[in-house]
Amino acid sequence: MPHRLTVIVAVLGVAACTSSEAPEPDASLQFFPPVEIGTTLVSDVGAELDVIVEDAASRRATPIADAYRETVNRILHEALTNGQAHERLRHLCDVIGPRLSGSQGLANAVAWTSGTMRDDGVDRVELMPVMVPAWVRGNEDATMVVPRRVPLKMLGLGNSIGTPSGGIEADVVVVRDFDELKALGDAVAGKIVLYDHPMPTYDPVAGSGYGQTVRYRTSGASNAAAQGAVAVLVRSVTATSLQTPHTGMLRYDTAKPRIPAAAVSTEDAEMLHRLLDAGQTVRVRLNMEAHFEDDAPSANVIGDIIGSELPDEIVLISGHLDSWDVGHGAHDDGANCMAVMDALRLLKSMGLRPRRTIRAVLWTNEENGLRGSREYINAKGKEIPMYAAAIEADSGAYRPLGYTRAAAKDERGERINARLADLMTLFDTIGAGRLRDGGGGADIGAMAAFGVPMLGLDVEGSRYFDIHHTHADTFDKVDRDDLLHVEAVLAATAFVLADMPDRLGD
Amino acid sequence: MPHRLTVIVAVLGVAACTSSEAPEPDASLQFFPPVEIGTTLVSDVGAELDVIVEDAASRRATPIADAYRETVNRILHEALTNGQAHERLRHLCDVIGPRLSGSQGLANAVAWTSGTMRDDGVDRVELMPVMVPAWVRGNEDATMVVPRRVPLKMLGLGNSIGTPSGGIEADVVVVRDFDELKALGDAVAGKIVLYDHPMPTYDPVAGSGYGQTVRYRTSGASNAAAQGAVAVLVRSVTATSLQTPHTGMLRYDTAKPRIPAAAVSTEDAEMLHRLLDAGQTVRVRLNMEAHFEDDAPSANVIGDIIGSELPDEIVLISGHLDSWDVGHGAHDDGANCMAVMDALRLLKSMGLRPRRTIRAVLWTNEENGLRGSREYINAKGKEIPMYAAAIEADSGAYRPLGYTRAAAKDERGERINARLADLMTLFDTIGAGRLRDGGGGADIGAMAAFGVPMLGLDVEGSRYFDIHHTHADTFDKVDRDDLLHVEAVLAATAFVLADMPDRLGD
Repeated sequence: MPHRLTVIVAVLGVAACTSSEAPEPDASLQFFPPVEIGTTLVSDVGAELDVIVEDAASRRATPIADAYRETVNRILHEALTNGQAHERLRHLCDVIGPRLSGSQGLANAVAWTSGTMRDDGVDRVELMPVMVPAWVRGNEDATMVVPRRVPLKMLGLGNSIGTPSGGIEADVVVVRDFDELKALGDAVAGKIVLYDHPMPTYDPVAGSGYGQTVRYRTSGASNAAAQGAVAVLVRSVTATSLQTPHTGMLRYDTAKPRIPAAAVSTEDAEMLHRLLDAGQTVRVRLNMEAHFEDDAPSANVIGDIIGSELPDEIVLISGHLDSWDVGHGAHDDGANCMAVMDALRLLKSMGLRPRRTIRAVLWTNEENGLRGSREYINAKGKEIPMYAAAIEADSGAYRPLGYTRAAAKDERGERINARLADLMTLFDTIGAGRLRDGGGGADIGAMAAFGVPMLGLDVEGSRYFDIHHTHADTFDKVDRDDLLHVEAVLAATAFVLADMPDRLGD
Repeated sequence: MPHRLTVIVAVLGVAACTSSEAPEPDASLQFFPPVEIGTTLVSDVGAELDVIVEDAASRRATPIADAYRETVNRILHEALTNGQAHERLRHLCDVIGPRLSGSQGLANAVAWTSGTMRDDGVDRVELMPVMVPAWVRGNEDATMVVPRRVPLKMLGLGNSIGTPSGGIEADVVVVRDFDELKALGDAVAGKIVLYDHPMPTYDPVAGSGYGQTVRYRTSGASNAAAQGAVAVLVRSVTATSLQTPHTGMLRYDTAKPRIPAAAVSTEDAEMLHRLLDAGQTVRVRLNMEAHFEDDAPSANVIGDIIGSELPDEIVLISGHLDSWDVGHGAHDDGANCMAVMDALRLLKSMGLRPRRTIRAVLWTNEENGLRGSREYINAKGKEIPMYAAAIEADSGAYRPLGYTRAAAKDERGERINARLADLMTLFDTIGAGRLRDGGGGADIGAMAAFGVPMLGLDVEGSRYFDIHHTHADTFDKVDRDDLLHVEAVLAATAFVLADMPDRLGD
């Protein structure tokens, strides 16, 4: 198969000259379509692939999907009937609980999932060691002390520094966006800056508006610090709230002072804003013990169904096992991890061994570092160009609608999309046959540089940001039937991509 | 008008022999239609009223509504255009805040609303002194300590005793209802009983299911204590939750031991239940400093537009000014108080003085004692039989749909309903023309014994119990347009009932 070898060499060439300098993937980027880094690099390779592509296409007279329809229907049926992802999620949520990097919960989850995979008879289970940051929230509170005393509903932002012991008390200045902040100049010096930027109501076409809203959480602290602010409060990134604060990662600009930052509920943000609009002086006292402890050992949990013919051509399906330290990390991302893990058990139980390897990866440290993803690239970089596809499920475990894909705007990208459009018809029976533009996922993002076709599981998204990174991301929020549909789609997709005549990108 | 005097004497007779022994109205009863006490007593009077009724009816050849349609339309327009209830609510919520009986917040609200009424030029403003209970929540928390450590989202129940200092730690036993509790016998001795009784999803026909669900909050503690339980956790009375605990009043049976009781979020109730179902031992530690301090002075705030011809025939419109100690008490019941208060200003500003008196009452201590209502009956009992009608708005300030009415099943009741059916057509233009069976309200409930026709403002109810008695009952939850519609309906109803030829019940 000389045409395939040509591809590998071409892509490896790109990998070799980019992997060491690959920009650090950004967790917040998972919702910014498209993943530009991938697009650019894959485009560079595109010219070399053209010949191969046409060659491969000419060998295929009929759609692949038809050849797999019966098998896929059997997999879907088996998952919806006998999938165990929901029962496994119950254990993860209730018995193990949240799983912030560096916590005992994450260590317990790594041990339990890897043990479960072994018990399931998965062909090969690997724990890939990863040292992860250990950010610890500690005690924290925020109180409006002027004009009246109101305890605010808050959660410190991940990676934030703490306040001095005794807290920070200062007048509050409110801004709607970075433009308003900039216009204030050094008028914010010595103040607590409140970003009151509302997230739009979910729209099925426009989506959640997360990308446009989350930047106040990720970059608000450094931008305000640059103008002399002493702390930052950020309106929670959600369009729905019952006094529900949403945590999540911030990123300090190393060139600017580090100041503590916390999310407050939309209700409290609006109250502070109204009082300021009414001409009141508003003062808040913020106490946060947040700090980093020494990096802690963790691991990516990897399980393989080894391919019968092309074991190095891996179809990777994945979710991230770590979570924030509140709630159960159920939708984000425990449920999808359980679907990924149980998909292997399901295929094994059906006696289905594809030609290529199906690899389940439960990433560590997606939420506040992406160290798991980075270590995977370091450890497996040379093998990645062989991969047939990489899939991440990290948008909640709601009813699956299909996949998102950040396709390169070139001939290879269009060909992959055309093949996927064919394959997606396999999921029309359960309403999951849609392919649309979007990211693959934060953990697999770096694989774009290796030319690996990436897919993100696309789910009904109207409620995800109600509970995202909150105390309310709990087991009860995951519908059993929805989760089994996720398991069904992931298992069937993995099998087809791993068994079809050529890799998706060939 | 001898026929009218006959009525008064008859009704006074009933009042005289019942008011001193009137059962204490029950705040939780406001959602139990019908108000049985009223129905029974009014029925007794019904026979004597028959003659008068027919006499009065014969004088009226055409519906009253048509005579008031133009005026009502002007009132509705004015309220929707220039109503200030929403702006006033902002002050109540943001500047004054929550208003639990005995708190500084309630004292501030009494002072501000009475002062505002005076500033509005209301004819007569009265502060009726009421001594109210001063239940203080203090610090409180609940933590699952076995099988893993999870801080639970909780709120102590109003009127609960506290725990001993150091808290109560015990194994948890879960029951779905009182039958399951009874079946356990003394197996609950020494245990913490968790009531996990889910509230049904709101149904526009069946309603909220509050009445059937709230009894575990009101009576759960004493029922469990009777079997030896040491504390009680109650699943929050809501069908929607983002880890949102709902407080509210409990009532101790004086014949049984008093044990502390707290609401937990639906999420946490379900988690505890699932762990117990899975055979785990579950232990919880409960700390509550809850206690009563000395009764505190408070007041019903009363404002009158004095009737031009029949000043003693009062149309009472009302809401309760006190709230729980969490959130802003916005929907419950600050918003309706602002609508009631601003309705007087609105009618004054339009130069509308009806024949009878319109009285706005902002009740104190509805939530945990009904002392305001009781003191009103004590102070004004002899005048109440003259009242033309009593209206309470205490189901949130959502879009008004009309009124609920617990009508006596007798001729007078049917006649009142027939007149109301006529009058309700005045509100068809704004979708508020519906009259249906239901209670009048907790504060006015005792007036049924005096034969006063009672109405409860009926509003779109799908979201009320999402935020009822929670931190999330905040200003932002009240839609300005909805609230102005409430003000419009209350103002117009009060005017028509106060100006029409006869009282509603004549």
